[in-house]
Amino acid sequence: MSQLLKGKAAADAIDAQTSAKVMAMLEQGVGPTLAIVRVGENSSDIAYENGAVKKAAKLGIQTEKYICQADIEEEDLIAVMKSINENERIHGVLLLQPLPGHIDAAKVRNALAPEKDLDCISDDSLGRFFTGREGYGPCTAESCIEILKYYGIPIAGKKAVVIGRSMVIGKPAALLLLKENATVTVCHTKTASEDLKELCKGADIIIAAAGKIGTVTADMAREGQTIIDVGINFSEEGKMTGDVDFDSVSRVLGESGAITPVPGGVGSVTTTLLMRHLAEAAEKACGNKR
Amino acid sequence: MSQLLKGKAAADAIDAQTSAKVMAMLEQGVGPTLAIVRVGENSSDIAYENGAVKKAAKLGIQTEKYICQADIEEEDLIAVMKSINENERIHGVLLLQPLPGHIDAAKVRNALAPEKDLDCISDDSLGRFFTGREGYGPCTAESCIEILKYYGIPIAGKKAVVIGRSMVIGKPAALLLLKENATVTVCHTKTASEDLKELCKGADIIIAAAGKIGTVTADMAREGQTIIDVGINFSEEGKMTGDVDFDSVSRVLGESGAITPVPGGVGSVTTTLLMRHLAEAAEKACGNKR
Repeated sequence: MSQLLKGKAAADAIDAQTSAKVMAMLEQGVGPTLAIVRVGENSSDIAYENGAVKKAAKLGIQTEKYICQADIEEEDLIAVMKSINENERIHGVLLLQPLPGHIDAAKVRNALAPEKDLDCISDDSLGRFFTGREGYGPCTAESCIEILKYYGIPIAGKKAVVIGRSMVIGKPAALLLLKENATVTVCHTKTASEDLKELCKGADIIIAAAGKIGTVTADMAREGQTIIDVGINFSEEGKMTGDVDFDSVSRVLGESGAITPVPGGVGSVTTTLLMRHLAEAAEKACGNKR
Repeated sequence: MSQLLKGKAAADAIDAQTSAKVMAMLEQGVGPTLAIVRVGENSSDIAYENGAVKKAAKLGIQTEKYICQADIEEEDLIAVMKSINENERIHGVLLLQPLPGHIDAAKVRNALAPEKDLDCISDDSLGRFFTGREGYGPCTAESCIEILKYYGIPIAGKKAVVIGRSMVIGKPAALLLLKENATVTVCHTKTASEDLKELCKGADIIIAAAGKIGTVTADMAREGQTIIDVGINFSEEGKMTGDVDFDSVSRVLGESGAITPVPGGVGSVTTTLLMRHLAEAAEKACGNKR
């Protein structure tokens, strides 16, 4: 069986750095603070929020919750975002998504100031990310790269295939791989299946971000590859599963190959990166005040 | 020999559409107007400027020249850009580049208002382009796609390789190919030469934008491919030449293949797209005034 690239080990290493940063700020009397904005009482939102609060507490980061009624007016939610922008005590924001259907989510996301946008949710932040300017990248896409780096998997000069071309995962992941000097191919729903198979087989690294069960099957893999599975899908039996046929693909990859589990892979690193971005945002805010 | 994808035919077809738009506006009393900003008396700048003025005149577009001394201060050049932003008579800008070394070109480019940025030269425009928002794409990257479309070369579902990952050509061209539903691979200086060869051989479309003579050689090509050569290089003898070994590669492509010449390929379309963007910008400006 192939090496299991667990997210937790990578997350712990990053958390240790973040914690040190936060401690240094606390000693200087600065309390890095994350605002969590939630609309309604969706249970999966609350579960994610609890995870974030727990992680923040562990790292010494304070959290402030902004819980809004499920029927909040769009303009009132935008006002919440703007009040957070102006609140000097708050260094960054976690907006729980998706938002209810009566709200134009893009308007709310775009109301967030770039310096507090920890997960690249506004168009402006995304534009800055794609053009290499200051700001924070999308946490999920960054998680893929952080896992590769943590486990010492070479990226430069390697052939990488990204399956999926979304603005929040596929495209940013491709850009980050390019930045690390990989040769990057982006495949998607319009890629012919024989091309997808051939390109995957030829790749050193595959990032599966199609959001579909069975996207990567054993016949598309070969020994020694590294596969990062970004998919979070649920089987008919309600079991959380990635985009990759884990068992059969893992066997093909062999001992020289490596693969992230779902759950326990990429998903375990995203909140860690959000907190790292928060610590960086707090550092910048202090620096700017001096 | 392969089919020659001359830029002029594609440019003529686009120019005809632009001309019709401009005529319609002129009939309504609106004179679409392009500002040309030149610093110094560089002969290649002047040659490009003359070409643009001639093309504009042919299409009924007015031009206003802003000729600055070669030693103009950065802030004064920025003031020129800002005055153009505020000038309602002007619908778009052609800034001749490169600017002299004492000027921070990024600051000047970023001073241009997005609605007058016809060639995606500001960071903001580029960010908008990469995130699919309103604005004008980089003309050279768009030219590659326009040539493919004009000659009826299918892109959707095809394998495309882009050689080069610059922010102004390689990356935007890759994005545009993705938008047209191609499966896109980006190769660059850190791509292993055997991978580059293999990927090029497997591709249906190659966009060569490395800016280096001899980037694509006959052993990297195969029968039936389409190659768009974006390179503008000069041989030791001073002859303008692309990134592709034209003669030998063209023979390999065969009658079912196609290739753009240099000069006479991509370069013949860029000013045409600048003028199309200008006409669109003028239309928007009129629409907004109504």
